[in-house]
Amino acid sequence: MALADNDKQDGGGDDAGDGEQLDLASRLTQGHHQSLKLWLRMLSCTVKIENEIRSRLRASFGITLPRFDLMAQLERFPQGLRMGELSKRMMVTGGNITGITHQLEQEKLVVREPDPDDRRVYSVRLTPAGREAFATMAAVHEEWIAELLQGMSGAEKNQLIALLSTMKQHLHAADRA
Amino acid sequence: MALADNDKQDGGGDDAGDGEQLDLASRLTQGHHQSLKLWLRMLSCTVKIENEIRSRLRASFGITLPRFDLMAQLERFPQGLRMGELSKRMMVTGGNITGITHQLEQEKLVVREPDPDDRRVYSVRLTPAGREAFATMAAVHEEWIAELLQGMSGAEKNQLIALLSTMKQHLHAADRA
Repeated sequence: MALADNDKQDGGGDDAGDGEQLDLASRLTQGHHQSLKLWLRMLSCTVKIENEIRSRLRASFGITLPRFDLMAQLERFPQGLRMGELSKRMMVTGGNITGITHQLEQEKLVVREPDPDDRRVYSVRLTPAGREAFATMAAVHEEWIAELLQGMSGAEKNQLIALLSTMKQHLHAADRA
Repeated sequence: MALADNDKQDGGGDDAGDGEQLDLASRLTQGHHQSLKLWLRMLSCTVKIENEIRSRLRASFGITLPRFDLMAQLERFPQGLRMGELSKRMMVTGGNITGITHQLEQEKLVVREPDPDDRRVYSVRLTPAGREAFATMAAVHEEWIAELLQGMSGAEKNQLIALLSTMKQHLHAADRA
């Protein structure tokens, strides 16, 4: 199966097994195709929404998605986050965390301070001005997401949330295995 | 609502409306929270899988995710893709497409040729060696995805595929509006 999120690729060809052995092999293959199809469909929805949010953030607030993401992660930790921890929590790849932090520091939206437990390590947190700036953007961001997903019913959204929660738990369990 | 995919954040506080007006407002707010929750859960599953695939690709084949993605896009277009078209089709952000293409060209996995319709534009395609190299990786990639999603039943996967298809159609419709 090619790596494309495309409905037309699932031919029924795999069903034409003759004999027990082949049936098992083709069932396995179908299961793999199903997983790949699910992954590619989820990836393509995610990329579509992410790109839309990326361009809206730029147009409305003149900021990049990694910068928004970095502020979003800090917002959850008023006491600050170590740089390494921050880096692990980012949801968007491709941003230069040190560079973004430096920029935000210059704009007085974050402060960098030596960690009280280990003076060699720096920890970053939002300033009150940073919290305020982020709150404004987060409210608009929430409206955008609601707008982008408005074609789905509340029931469909709840079903999706439940299924994605199941997926997340299993991914988590796989992590620890 | 903070920008975190966290079950504990959905307090029931919004339900405490008194009067019609407030009820409408709080229903709206709840709808927005539901959409944001869905988006954050989907994003966190996607990031988790993507990071796992990224590190496995590096460990098993010594390649980056953007490079794998670029080859995956080319694999679907044996006749080649223009650079601009290729760039639009990428599912992974943060890769330097010109750089990756140049690298793959040096390794004789892709060729770059002037477009027959417009000699000023370059088009890229996989060489037979590139197709072969990609096929090997794609087969292993499919196994990984199946393994990562093995905790979910076939029925759950089908439900997810159906719901994500609905989402994709609505996102598509919003594009054209």
